[in-house]
Amino acid sequence: MSAGDRKEIKVGILGATGTVGQRFIQLLSSHPYFKIHALGASSRSAGQQYGKITKWKLNTPIPENIKSMIVQECKPTSGGFSECGVVFSGLDADVAGEIEEAFRSAELIIFSNSKNYRRDPLCPLIVPLVNPSHLSIIPHQKKSLGLEKGYIVTNANCSTTGLVVPLAALEKAFGPLETVMVTTLQAISGAGYPGVSSLDILDNVVPHISGEEEKIEWETNKILGGLNSNNESFNLHSDEKENLKPINVSATTTRVPVIDGHTGVVNVKFNSSRPKPSIEEIEKAFREFKCEAQELNVPSAPEQAIVVHDLPDRPQPRLDRDLHNGACVSVGRIRPCPVFDVKFVCLIDNVRLGAATSSIMNAEIAVEKGLIV
Amino acid sequence: MSAGDRKEIKVGILGATGTVGQRFIQLLSSHPYFKIHALGASSRSAGQQYGKITKWKLNTPIPENIKSMIVQECKPTSGGFSECGVVFSGLDADVAGEIEEAFRSAELIIFSNSKNYRRDPLCPLIVPLVNPSHLSIIPHQKKSLGLEKGYIVTNANCSTTGLVVPLAALEKAFGPLETVMVTTLQAISGAGYPGVSSLDILDNVVPHISGEEEKIEWETNKILGGLNSNNESFNLHSDEKENLKPINVSATTTRVPVIDGHTGVVNVKFNSSRPKPSIEEIEKAFREFKCEAQELNVPSAPEQAIVVHDLPDRPQPRLDRDLHNGACVSVGRIRPCPVFDVKFVCLIDNVRLGAATSSIMNAEIAVEKGLIV
Amino acid sequence: MSAGDRKEIKVGILGATGTVGQRFIQLLSSHPYFKIHALGASSRSAGQQYGKITKWKLNTPIPENIKSMIVQECKPTSGGFSECGVVFSGLDADVAGEIEEAFRSAELIIFSNSKNYRRDPLCPLIVPLVNPSHLSIIPHQKKSLGLEKGYIVTNANCSTTGLVVPLAALEKAFGPLETVMVTTLQAISGAGYPGVSSLDILDNVVPHISGEEEKIEWETNKILGGLNSNNESFNLHSDEKENLKPINVSATTTRVPVIDGHTGVVNVKFNSSRPKPSIEEIEKAFREFKCEAQELNVPSAPEQAIVVHDLPDRPQPRLDRDLHNGACVSVGRIRPCPVFDVKFVCLIDNVRLGAATSSIMNAEIAVEKGLIV
Amino acid sequence: MSAGDRKEIKVGILGATGTVGQRFIQLLSSHPYFKIHALGASSRSAGQQYGKITKWKLNTPIPENIKSMIVQECKPTSGGFSECGVVFSGLDADVAGEIEEAFRSAELIIFSNSKNYRRDPLCPLIVPLVNPSHLSIIPHQKKSLGLEKGYIVTNANCSTTGLVVPLAALEKAFGPLETVMVTTLQAISGAGYPGVSSLDILDNVVPHISGEEEKIEWETNKILGGLNSNNESFNLHSDEKENLKPINVSATTTRVPVIDGHTGVVNVKFNSSRPKPSIEEIEKAFREFKCEAQELNVPSAPEQAIVVHDLPDRPQPRLDRDLHNGACVSVGRIRPCPVFDVKFVCLIDNVRLGAATSSIMNAEIAVEKGLIV
Repeated sequence: MSAGDRKEIKVGILGATGTVGQRFIQLLSSHPYFKIHALGASSRSAGQQYGKITKWKLNTPIPENIKSMIVQECKPTSGGFSECGVVFSGLDADVAGEIEEAFRSAELIIFSNSKNYRRDPLCPLIVPLVNPSHLSIIPHQKKSLGLEKGYIVTNANCSTTGLVVPLAALEKAFGPLETVMVTTLQAISGAGYPGVSSLDILDNVVPHISGEEEKIEWETNKILGGLNSNNESFNLHSDEKENLKPINVSATTTRVPVIDGHTGVVNVKFNSSRPKPSIEEIEKAFREFKCEAQELNVPSAPEQAIVVHDLPDRPQPRLDRDLHNGACVSVGRIRPCPVFDVKFVCLIDNVRLGAATSSIMNAEIAVEKGLIV
Repeated sequence: MSAGDRKEIKVGILGATGTVGQRFIQLLSSHPYFKIHALGASSRSAGQQYGKITKWKLNTPIPENIKSMIVQECKPTSGGFSECGVVFSGLDADVAGEIEEAFRSAELIIFSNSKNYRRDPLCPLIVPLVNPSHLSIIPHQKKSLGLEKGYIVTNANCSTTGLVVPLAALEKAFGPLETVMVTTLQAISGAGYPGVSSLDILDNVVPHISGEEEKIEWETNKILGGLNSNNESFNLHSDEKENLKPINVSATTTRVPVIDGHTGVVNVKFNSSRPKPSIEEIEKAFREFKCEAQELNVPSAPEQAIVVHDLPDRPQPRLDRDLHNGACVSVGRIRPCPVFDVKFVCLIDNVRLGAATSSIMNAEIAVEKGLIV
Repeated sequence: MSAGDRKEIKVGILGATGTVGQRFIQLLSSHPYFKIHALGASSRSAGQQYGKITKWKLNTPIPENIKSMIVQECKPTSGGFSECGVVFSGLDADVAGEIEEAFRSAELIIFSNSKNYRRDPLCPLIVPLVNPSHLSIIPHQKKSLGLEKGYIVTNANCSTTGLVVPLAALEKAFGPLETVMVTTLQAISGAGYPGVSSLDILDNVVPHISGEEEKIEWETNKILGGLNSNNESFNLHSDEKENLKPINVSATTTRVPVIDGHTGVVNVKFNSSRPKPSIEEIEKAFREFKCEAQELNVPSAPEQAIVVHDLPDRPQPRLDRDLHNGACVSVGRIRPCPVFDVKFVCLIDNVRLGAATSSIMNAEIAVEKGLIV
Repeated sequence: MSAGDRKEIKVGILGATGTVGQRFIQLLSSHPYFKIHALGASSRSAGQQYGKITKWKLNTPIPENIKSMIVQECKPTSGGFSECGVVFSGLDADVAGEIEEAFRSAELIIFSNSKNYRRDPLCPLIVPLVNPSHLSIIPHQKKSLGLEKGYIVTNANCSTTGLVVPLAALEKAFGPLETVMVTTLQAISGAGYPGVSSLDILDNVVPHISGEEEKIEWETNKILGGLNSNNESFNLHSDEKENLKPINVSATTTRVPVIDGHTGVVNVKFNSSRPKPSIEEIEKAFREFKCEAQELNVPSAPEQAIVVHDLPDRPQPRLDRDLHNGACVSVGRIRPCPVFDVKFVCLIDNVRLGAATSSIMNAEIAVEKGLIV
């Protein structure tokens, strides 16, 4: 069924006034079948018009029909949420846990950009260009919790997402990886608004982002792992046929004066049990990488999942973050690593594929799989 | 002998109007015994007053007595150079080779910040906080070339310098290293003036600096190596007692919107033949690292060679590049590496210790050793 | 006739590899009836594929069909130019004068973004949202030069354009202005590529742009003036009915670390012969301003010529430069001036309405008026 | 008496952990006779070591002896304050009013950088390079409030300070001014920490700073005015001999991505009753401007009050803010104004002369005048 033929699905947005919430609105306001139906924010904002209380920071205006929508409290009983086929969450981690749980308990379906349920053994952690197959744990999630309809799906941390797409392409082509070393140069928008003080970042680098390195080191293995045969548990970077160890990941994360677009410097060592691919083979694997989101042809899927750059000084966040509407990962500088096997640079639009676009694309895939009706 | 007691030594500066040349002037104009005597620049500038033709880009004014000095062509016979006890070179690589050679042939002593002679087997490549002992090849350099007085000493690339100081501290305390992985986030001043276009770097990262990775990967081993017993050749990361292999270095270099101060993200693996030090022992080794420049108490030596930062988000270029007048290396975020043994972040003031200060400190050490009179 | 019904008109682009030339290509590659047919650049680039020799600096990729086009020398006889219905020029001022003259002499029609012919009494200087009526001097231009078809039309300096649109709205509603004081905060892209060195602008303001203040002070009066009754000469800020003096304009122009978007701080004094409008009336005049480009409904005309911002801290270049595809002027902070009558802040996308979009919209208007066939 | 001969005066700092408070500490820690004796901050910080709780954001380290000082609550009875000869206040405006009043009532002397008492008819508003004569209202302030020793002195808003110094030089040389138009381009440090969000200012200009324009328009006239003959009231831009009107000031204030240094674009009209000076005479008046702070030779007085720049693109914040330790005002681009008489660009280090340095210099002058003992 083409996207245009699908019947409208009402959606809610939690944390609608925040940085990620604004992106959800921007992206969903012209979606072929998701229709924004309910906006949730803090009780301080509830009851007021969205356009009046939101410090809108995107370079496209607030969609006209959203401006006058009345913001609700983030409760499943607040007007409109109960009618939503899916609820997207851009909530801050300090409130997301409880609120998302309340929505799920009320038999609502949550696609969350928050970190709270990423490590939950019942919740899939899905990068839409990598592991939509993990959606198959949902029946088990519902059953375990005694729910008929409600469930939570999470997407990954923005910098993890940018890393794991090229890693998935490498594993798909050449088998399992053994070691990954990554240094990130992350944009300020990753910290939300007001987020990073200008006094901290102008003419500066901050070589630390709290909790970020642990997320990259851990999430990578959940995403690149498999489900056991009865779809009831995740295997960290492993499946039943191969006896694999988790990938050894070491991350250092830094903040740089860039508005949008996380850059990653990546060094990779393949599992030594197979012959090493050449640089040309690796480039080819990146270029030819196709993912399920593309095969299902969901509306937010990029034409190309990985864009390979030939110029030696690319990808660059300012010039390349908008490629394919920010829904792809850019890769460049693919070359031999004197220490490991290959090194390269990757780039992700942290506010789109790294956040809202992933949530939305995950939900689109779930629609295709009959998990949202 | 204290610096104040030394008799004045006349110095020349080649490339005096450029970025590094301006730093030489700024630093030398208040030096206790080096006195600026001759300024060399392109023939286009020769014959004119320094203050009239220089696009001075430092935040201290041109020293009053320098303003009216007449710029000379970069020839050993140009007025004043022949009287200089040492000539500092901040020349661009495309002209440095020939000019420095001409000066040396004219029995002048060159301390050069240019890359041209760094790989020359006769020329020492010296980071003043690391390997001043390599100055002992100078008699061999002079003899080989049939010179009585003239020689060339080079200092390292700015980002190599920031890396090799903490590596030297680790080797001094715990023995030889096996593997180093480094990602740099380099300041725009490293590219000179006009250098990096603002359209390339504002709100951006450029993940490539031409030739820089090769410099880091190669220079590190020359600097951390030894001389053979008759001081006639360098051993790359080796000495006669230990049978060492060169350190396996993998570097990725990027440019970020920072004015001064190169940040390095470093992962290190010790040689497996010895017991691994703890994080506390590594921190202690950094803090207690003493170098020959400090022992000789030369005027430009920093009080501390390595400043260890305790705050989790330091060092930062804007806040920490001025420590000890830009003559030290900052180190922070010292922690275990899941892949290698330890990872940390280092910071160097690329225009001072990374360039002019190193040349000057090298010359000060040469004065102490009787190599400049 | 709707734009979609017009038959294709072949266009050439001079200076195609430069900053403005790249914008012409980006904007024209999806134009409803202008079709890129010839690309001109320096003789150094001529004969080579556009995609191979261009340092493309826009955040959308080079259009696929342009990549392999062969760049020509900027001569009217170079392959393709003679077939063009209109030739757009983004040439540097140091070569634009001669080349554009050669194209005109060869009976080609030039719409130029360069400054060379702006002060020429035969050439109209047109801001498409303000004075397309000045196109009526073209027959006189052709006749004076003995040409049958060739002529030159110029558009204004980018910061003049941003100023003159709100001034035109004020004059249209409230009659002639007496005095204008303006301070600009201009983006780096206004200087082309490589243009402004990052060392000059990061963490900095440069309070001077060579020649820019004179352009604003002079061009404003040509644009806001009229033609005499037989369309043979321009009256600086005057028409035959009213006995006006030129507007007294004082400009200070500065460069700030912004990529695209020139901000103007404007103070205006109305001619004292009429009653002063209230702030509310001024706001209304801005909001309701309609221009000929809109009435003709040409493809590049913005839906709104002036966007009035209500939030006290707008317009801002990063958030508002993309409104209406960069083809409008934003105005905000409209309030009484203690010295003159009113003060406000305006913003223009200097690379679109301030450059390429103006040229293109001028040509579209000329098409509507039968001046391009 | 020379500064070195003065006996030590104990000083306290209110708001010691904030942006201005940190500057007070940095500047006072090496002061010849002021000795830091008490540090005040919020009750949340009270009782803890300064070095432990302060997010120090300056590029020199916290002075060693300050690190371990115990922070007090901002009460006159808190340990140490009662022994202070002067207390400097860098408090936020929302608490400064009450706290400073409490300190004054307790017979303490306050030199405040806060805005709360600037418009108070009993409190002098002093720019040390302009109007230290206003200190003569202090006896009247004390008498009016029934105090023996306690009083409050304020210094001006940072951007007012940068403007009023060159205006004072013009009035001193050429008599009263009639009209001043100013546009400021202000640094982010003016907003304190965390202050301006990086998402608001990177690649951007914010054309509004709340309350700032009113401060400039009002404070200018109080500072440039006189006291009546019995030192009991201020005359706004007036003295008893001349029948003057307040200067007509119109200000627009903007925020730009600069760390330190406010730039002002100034247009000035002299009072028409006298012959207009030439540009050369104006330049001379700026260069030769001497102020009382210099005549009294207080420790923080700059060698030159106004530095005139000859290069057409200066002053620039990054290159010129450090001149004379940030205690002078830079002026450049002095040229005729087509609308008024003269226009120029000025620059002030907003965190030093624009804040802490002014407070300290004011107190040094008060010491010379016997008002602090």
